[in-house]
Amino acid sequence: MVIILEKNASQEQVNNIIKHLEDYGFQIHQSTGVERTIIGAIGVKPDFDTRKVRILEGVAEVYRITTPYKLANRSFHAENTIIKIKDVEIGGNKIAMIAGPCSVENEDQIFRLAKSVAKSGARILRGGAFKPRTSPYSFQGLGEEGLKLLRSAADENNLLVITEVMQIDHIELIDKYTDIFQLGARNMQNFSLLKELGKVDKPVMIKRGQAATIEEWLMSAEYVLSGGNKNVFLCERGIRTFENYTRNTFDLSAIPVVHKKSHLPIIADPSHATGLRDQVPPMARAAVAAGADGLMIEIHDDPENALSDGPQALLPDSFQKLTEELRLIAKAIGREL
Amino acid sequence: MVIILEKNASQEQVNNIIKHLEDYGFQIHQSTGVERTIIGAIGVKPDFDTRKVRILEGVAEVYRITTPYKLANRSFHAENTIIKIKDVEIGGNKIAMIAGPCSVENEDQIFRLAKSVAKSGARILRGGAFKPRTSPYSFQGLGEEGLKLLRSAADENNLLVITEVMQIDHIELIDKYTDIFQLGARNMQNFSLLKELGKVDKPVMIKRGQAATIEEWLMSAEYVLSGGNKNVFLCERGIRTFENYTRNTFDLSAIPVVHKKSHLPIIADPSHATGLRDQVPPMARAAVAAGADGLMIEIHDDPENALSDGPQALLPDSFQKLTEELRLIAKAIGREL
Amino acid sequence: MVIILEKNASQEQVNNIIKHLEDYGFQIHQSTGVERTIIGAIGVKPDFDTRKVRILEGVAEVYRITTPYKLANRSFHAENTIIKIKDVEIGGNKIAMIAGPCSVENEDQIFRLAKSVAKSGARILRGGAFKPRTSPYSFQGLGEEGLKLLRSAADENNLLVITEVMQIDHIELIDKYTDIFQLGARNMQNFSLLKELGKVDKPVMIKRGQAATIEEWLMSAEYVLSGGNKNVFLCERGIRTFENYTRNTFDLSAIPVVHKKSHLPIIADPSHATGLRDQVPPMARAAVAAGADGLMIEIHDDPENALSDGPQALLPDSFQKLTEELRLIAKAIGREL
Amino acid sequence: MVIILEKNASQEQVNNIIKHLEDYGFQIHQSTGVERTIIGAIGVKPDFDTRKVRILEGVAEVYRITTPYKLANRSFHAENTIIKIKDVEIGGNKIAMIAGPCSVENEDQIFRLAKSVAKSGARILRGGAFKPRTSPYSFQGLGEEGLKLLRSAADENNLLVITEVMQIDHIELIDKYTDIFQLGARNMQNFSLLKELGKVDKPVMIKRGQAATIEEWLMSAEYVLSGGNKNVFLCERGIRTFENYTRNTFDLSAIPVVHKKSHLPIIADPSHATGLRDQVPPMARAAVAAGADGLMIEIHDDPENALSDGPQALLPDSFQKLTEELRLIAKAIGREL
Repeated sequence: MVIILEKNASQEQVNNIIKHLEDYGFQIHQSTGVERTIIGAIGVKPDFDTRKVRILEGVAEVYRITTPYKLANRSFHAENTIIKIKDVEIGGNKIAMIAGPCSVENEDQIFRLAKSVAKSGARILRGGAFKPRTSPYSFQGLGEEGLKLLRSAADENNLLVITEVMQIDHIELIDKYTDIFQLGARNMQNFSLLKELGKVDKPVMIKRGQAATIEEWLMSAEYVLSGGNKNVFLCERGIRTFENYTRNTFDLSAIPVVHKKSHLPIIADPSHATGLRDQVPPMARAAVAAGADGLMIEIHDDPENALSDGPQALLPDSFQKLTEELRLIAKAIGREL
Repeated sequence: MVIILEKNASQEQVNNIIKHLEDYGFQIHQSTGVERTIIGAIGVKPDFDTRKVRILEGVAEVYRITTPYKLANRSFHAENTIIKIKDVEIGGNKIAMIAGPCSVENEDQIFRLAKSVAKSGARILRGGAFKPRTSPYSFQGLGEEGLKLLRSAADENNLLVITEVMQIDHIELIDKYTDIFQLGARNMQNFSLLKELGKVDKPVMIKRGQAATIEEWLMSAEYVLSGGNKNVFLCERGIRTFENYTRNTFDLSAIPVVHKKSHLPIIADPSHATGLRDQVPPMARAAVAAGADGLMIEIHDDPENALSDGPQALLPDSFQKLTEELRLIAKAIGREL
Repeated sequence: MVIILEKNASQEQVNNIIKHLEDYGFQIHQSTGVERTIIGAIGVKPDFDTRKVRILEGVAEVYRITTPYKLANRSFHAENTIIKIKDVEIGGNKIAMIAGPCSVENEDQIFRLAKSVAKSGARILRGGAFKPRTSPYSFQGLGEEGLKLLRSAADENNLLVITEVMQIDHIELIDKYTDIFQLGARNMQNFSLLKELGKVDKPVMIKRGQAATIEEWLMSAEYVLSGGNKNVFLCERGIRTFENYTRNTFDLSAIPVVHKKSHLPIIADPSHATGLRDQVPPMARAAVAAGADGLMIEIHDDPENALSDGPQALLPDSFQKLTEELRLIAKAIGREL
Repeated sequence: MVIILEKNASQEQVNNIIKHLEDYGFQIHQSTGVERTIIGAIGVKPDFDTRKVRILEGVAEVYRITTPYKLANRSFHAENTIIKIKDVEIGGNKIAMIAGPCSVENEDQIFRLAKSVAKSGARILRGGAFKPRTSPYSFQGLGEEGLKLLRSAADENNLLVITEVMQIDHIELIDKYTDIFQLGARNMQNFSLLKELGKVDKPVMIKRGQAATIEEWLMSAEYVLSGGNKNVFLCERGIRTFENYTRNTFDLSAIPVVHKKSHLPIIADPSHATGLRDQVPPMARAAVAAGADGLMIEIHDDPENALSDGPQALLPDSFQKLTEELRLIAKAIGREL
């Protein structure tokens, strides 16, 4: 922490500030210039509330100098984390493709779509069984029946499964069927759930909250990591801004920023980010070009009758075509898909 | 729902659109002008995903014409909801004051502060026992011990208790000690938790999520109301914007907007909205002047050593002084405090 | 400026960083802790681009420690600026009321409304003659004819005039008719115009840009102040956020923040902030309660036929009623209106 | 315009609403359902302020059904606009590269950099002679001397020139030296300047304002188009959001959205969008993959001593390398560079 004192701070104020810092356990470095005094305070845990110092008399500004996350921080873990699940890797040179419907709706639907996913070369099947819906009157998912169908459809096509967990007492149930736990954007700061996911022995994908800074997002990863689960990856899916033509604003800059600040893999979800089918292909291409370690894409073969989010789902044919384009872009930047 | 067709939509496209609408169960009103055709579609549940129509060929724009919330909607419930808990009312002419520390830290602290709250004339004591913290390394609350202390301190001073619930399996425990359940901003769209709170027989206060529109906030209220719990009130606590001098941007306009669109009471929390002690009194005054049905204010008598959010806590003396000012403003707009 | 070095910065990197800082003219304070080295760099002009240091090898973070504005800064000018125009003061204990139509439309309209403004006790008449409009097809104002009418209507009712200037080559013309120049939100960073307004000998009111931080707003004031014009005041009129029920989000916290960081007066414009007539009275009351030094309110006696912004204009009767309420709130906080 | 009436609107209210609409010149289509009446109002100019109807008694909601821009609208101009300047095209299959320093600093600098731009195959040289700076104390550009140097450097390397115009009375001067006028983000709604640029006979590039919706941006294009200048293209350069690790949030989704709604070319500026050199290459690649018709990139061969924005400038070598990568991505999506 660095404390900048007011121009006219009295000696008494300076002494009081230093006393407080020492009481909080900091080691002090004072630097007195012509106009200003600067105090460096070192040695306390990263989540110290700097406002405690900001409110002392004589203090002009306070800056935290350590990032509040340790385990997610590239400074302490220089090499990329590569998550391995059976023969699939996330975070390596190969870009991981995740695809499937928003919700599992029935046996036919999920088996047809799983086949389509496998055909494209993607290796991970998505599908919601418990759905977070803004309205209490909307379709809320098939529950365990959906999980069973998802697992069978994946197994028949040699795919892995990712599905969302919304509450602690569903973890055990979902664990029976999934390979990867998905934490949704609305639950990114559901700290109770994050703590429990720190105890599972399967990878966790954390979607970025609509109003979450990159730092807060990495703090949510820190919750899982600090619980002992090292297999965490992130998923950019758009943030909320004033622009409302698109459902969210896809913050693709988050990809190189996360790669710089953290060793965790980061993938991108252009379906939720844009909310409109015709925006998905250009934004999927852009995400790969920006360096995403994977993509999550919603597909449906009857989007007009989909029980949720049909309008943002790609048709299977468009998805195959997109996959071919992405392969070329991956190659252009020295990666595979 | 109103559908505006493209200028040059073909008759075949128009027919196809109408067929889809009828299949979805809508009653159709077509209006053909010189340049444009407009279709009114009436009669389906409010959460219909309008994007299903937006993606049909020939459609230019689609507008939902019903609000997606019914039970929270003033159109269907013209009179203000007044929540009665023992001899305290929220939503009536008298402005409800809630005050107390961010966290319950120990017996002495909460008893001293409860006394101070009572002295000011406020009737509801706040205090966190389970704390949502951005960092896994921060103080997470005293748990049940904190709840017990909070209850005793309130009882000794004839106060009601409000405290936050973060997960479903804490509801039963917290229910033993609290008078009002608080749902935090980060959990505003924790739909699993909202559903369970629809089943409790105590009032629920829903804080606005950092990125929540007023409509989404009312939809969260709808979850609780639709579960059978009619005693819901809202708490504006700031939204996330680009301005970062204050912790959040206090959206006081939400107060008259909620009063217009809903019959539910709305209070304001200037402590979390601003995050800085010296901003709390002017913003508390502004909230009352804007028509808030109550205020929630953090106080602490030793903020420098508070275990959480000390920098935004008012000292008890400042709180008493503020209460006097608020009484005058309440009177100026024909209310009491 | 404070520079935090990387944990593992080499001695060579440290030397290189220090050399750069010295070349830029800074005086250096180095503080080496167990884990980190901190460098304080003092003595260069406030607008130094800190990113020049941030990109050097071995640098982890850089913080500016001086505010980039001097003349607008309360640290260098502790007393409130009070602007005096004839017998009217802005920034003193008395809250200044500015009212009038969005646009001057014709002689009858502006004379009727000026009379209404005077009747309420307000002393400053607003009215646009050159209008900034989003659409090139909208009414663009009456031009000089509008200025003449505005001046006559003000004079007949012993009022001052404020009107907007949109381009440099209008300054001379507008100067003949106005008492105060208004700089609109869209021009807040029209630096060419700001520089010219630094040379006029009349007060300038600077509206906050829709995406402007408080610091950027004060930097715009600095442009005018540094040109020699000391009579600057600010007007909060809402910022752009994701919430779109209201036209903008009225950031009332800006009032106490500006009062803390600057000595310049700040008023508030609830008409543009909310964009809806029924939101104006509660938000006007809130602004006064938050400490605004004045209000700017749009009124119209035939809003349905107003040539611009009719829907946010108060009717003269509502305006008189509001003025009475505001007087009570002003009194409650020890001020007059 | 579509007007949704209140559920319980009286016949008198309905009649009054219809009378108003007819007085405003609309043609009426009424559609009465079981629960609601919908009125379609057709035939008035696109900038009608719908709030005039929203405030009438009995009205629940009002929706505009026409876009407020005509000349920029793809509905009225299905083919892409391709701007031709000598042998260079913007908006065709070939992606246009614009590069150069933030500011023209001196003869040597601009000639060295122009050579580097030409070597990469780019055909347009950028460079600021009049600089918009947040601080009045920052370097404001070389003025006409800068323009002369820019022109000579471009001519010697067979490049076109683009440079920013900040005020009306500079248009004539800049016109002598430039091939394309750049309108900066802060001036996107400087309507006076937009009108004058509608009269010049050279292309105008309009940068997106920090808080501008895509619709407002297209309205600014409409100002220039409606003045008679058909050679307008847009430049996405980031919008302001709560995320502050990057300078702005690069809204790449704007590229496919603009392509859908308008026939005007759109390019992207990753240098200003991110503000940090190491973010520029991934975001430039993403922009091309998303379908941008061009890129504007800042380069500098001595960024540490650049007079403005050095930290976001690419070194010439990195720029050459990036160009090669972009060529591969362009090819992958069927375009050239």
